[in-house]
Amino acid sequence: MTSGSDNSRPPTRRSGAWFSETRPGGDDALCARVERHVCTVEGPLQRIDIFDTPSFGRVFTLDGLVMVTERDEWMYHEMLVHVPLFSHPDPRRVLIIGGGDGGSLREVLRHPGVEEAVLVEIDGNVVEAARAHLPFTAKAMDDPRATVLVEEGAAYVKARRARFDAIIIDSTDPFKGAGGLLFTEEFYAGCRAALRDGGVLSAETEDVFYDAEWWTKASARLANVFRVSRAYWGSVTTYPSGAWTYAFASDTVDPVRDLRREDARRMAQALRYYDDEIHAACFALPRFMKQALSASR
Amino acid sequence: MTSGSDNSRPPTRRSGAWFSETRPGGDDALCARVERHVCTVEGPLQRIDIFDTPSFGRVFTLDGLVMVTERDEWMYHEMLVHVPLFSHPDPRRVLIIGGGDGGSLREVLRHPGVEEAVLVEIDGNVVEAARAHLPFTAKAMDDPRATVLVEEGAAYVKARRARFDAIIIDSTDPFKGAGGLLFTEEFYAGCRAALRDGGVLSAETEDVFYDAEWWTKASARLANVFRVSRAYWGSVTTYPSGAWTYAFASDTVDPVRDLRREDARRMAQALRYYDDEIHAACFALPRFMKQALSASR
Repeated sequence: MTSGSDNSRPPTRRSGAWFSETRPGGDDALCARVERHVCTVEGPLQRIDIFDTPSFGRVFTLDGLVMVTERDEWMYHEMLVHVPLFSHPDPRRVLIIGGGDGGSLREVLRHPGVEEAVLVEIDGNVVEAARAHLPFTAKAMDDPRATVLVEEGAAYVKARRARFDAIIIDSTDPFKGAGGLLFTEEFYAGCRAALRDGGVLSAETEDVFYDAEWWTKASARLANVFRVSRAYWGSVTTYPSGAWTYAFASDTVDPVRDLRREDARRMAQALRYYDDEIHAACFALPRFMKQALSASR
Repeated sequence: MTSGSDNSRPPTRRSGAWFSETRPGGDDALCARVERHVCTVEGPLQRIDIFDTPSFGRVFTLDGLVMVTERDEWMYHEMLVHVPLFSHPDPRRVLIIGGGDGGSLREVLRHPGVEEAVLVEIDGNVVEAARAHLPFTAKAMDDPRATVLVEEGAAYVKARRARFDAIIIDSTDPFKGAGGLLFTEEFYAGCRAALRDGGVLSAETEDVFYDAEWWTKASARLANVFRVSRAYWGSVTTYPSGAWTYAFASDTVDPVRDLRREDARRMAQALRYYDDEIHAACFALPRFMKQALSASR
């Protein structure tokens, strides 16, 4: 153990307030020094904390888990959104389930062909806190093409038929109450029905190193519902293991074959993670991820 | 901040001994609960600590920085070794600089064509500690094809001419004393001279999210010395940011074009990270990495 350890708590070089997110299993943690507490909202669904850190800029947590940090949220939002949207030939109507911080919405609205982007967030407190304190993601909500609804996502989807070209599932972690609903086969079937012909879907599917359960479940269930389903991954510094997974699904679109390469390359000039090369490469999974999928079958 | 914070140290769910590695900048940390302290060696070059953790199994640190953990060392060693060795048509003699834990050596010796693998580690204490406490990496040192030398790597290389088919630079972090030598242009030129015709080289080049300096320096210097130099990356859970970078260099070999795909696919059956698909994909860099390179030019 390094010097500074007092045998009871993680030693740190700098004193002051620290945030820690204990990783799945409870035996390790991401710790970050806090410069300033911005706000805490204890709501009926979950607890919101927002604070400023030297390492990650502004940090937004739900029930103590990092959802968004200013310094790496684009790694996540770009991969969740641009992989499906550049696989579709002409996405005009896009639905985002969850994502009340607005980061996925911001990425959707970069696409000039998008005419309507509907964001359905279950927790109105998240939308309010984001509007007040996370301008780097929430400013997208002011776009005239955006509609922000505070509703339960699965119910919203169930009531729609052949309405969207793309659905982006930007859920919280599934082991939390509301997030789990968005990992069910029934929900995915609802999404399929809510897509127009040729529609595409993406979903965040958690980390594989600590706990492959949700990733393998989501992959199997999407494969039961859609003709095409592919897993992909990318780096997100502050998420567990730093290697985050996503799922792509569609009945007709193959995300590698159908990539609009020139369009992706052009937009990537304004991006910080995604480009046409990453799009093609992110479907190559490290073997431990493939093995987790095989083991679950 | 999560409940449990006492405003002075990172809160954790479980009490007991914890290890923490403060990340570059000093304002965030990886923290892991320690089940058992295995050994500490205070040597003239550096301090070694080995301990057991529930999250990462056995952990080996140098001056408080994680070098090897049982649960993710293969992510690093497979990428550092197999990318260059499967790019070369027939690697027989391989030199490893650093890597006194034996993990890179283990991966080199998986290649049936390798006749001689020389490991040159500056710190004999590392080799001894690994032999005593890290059997999962150090057992490779017992292979009759392996030679383990305790010497300074740059001096060893300088005295060799046209001797090796591949050189693997498995250094410690360059901001530590001995590691920095292995990031100089003079050292890379020495490596080039020590390679036989058609030889290949790989090097670990640190993380880009926290500090792009060493990555951009190594990339620029390798490009000055070798005709072909390419950056690649992969996930390593316990290393800073979880996204680790590597460099490939050669005068004649293009690592994507010259991949021995069938051989790589066959060996990958025994691996946990690398395979032929990852080999091709790992050269696609996220844009923030590309931007760091451009900014440094």
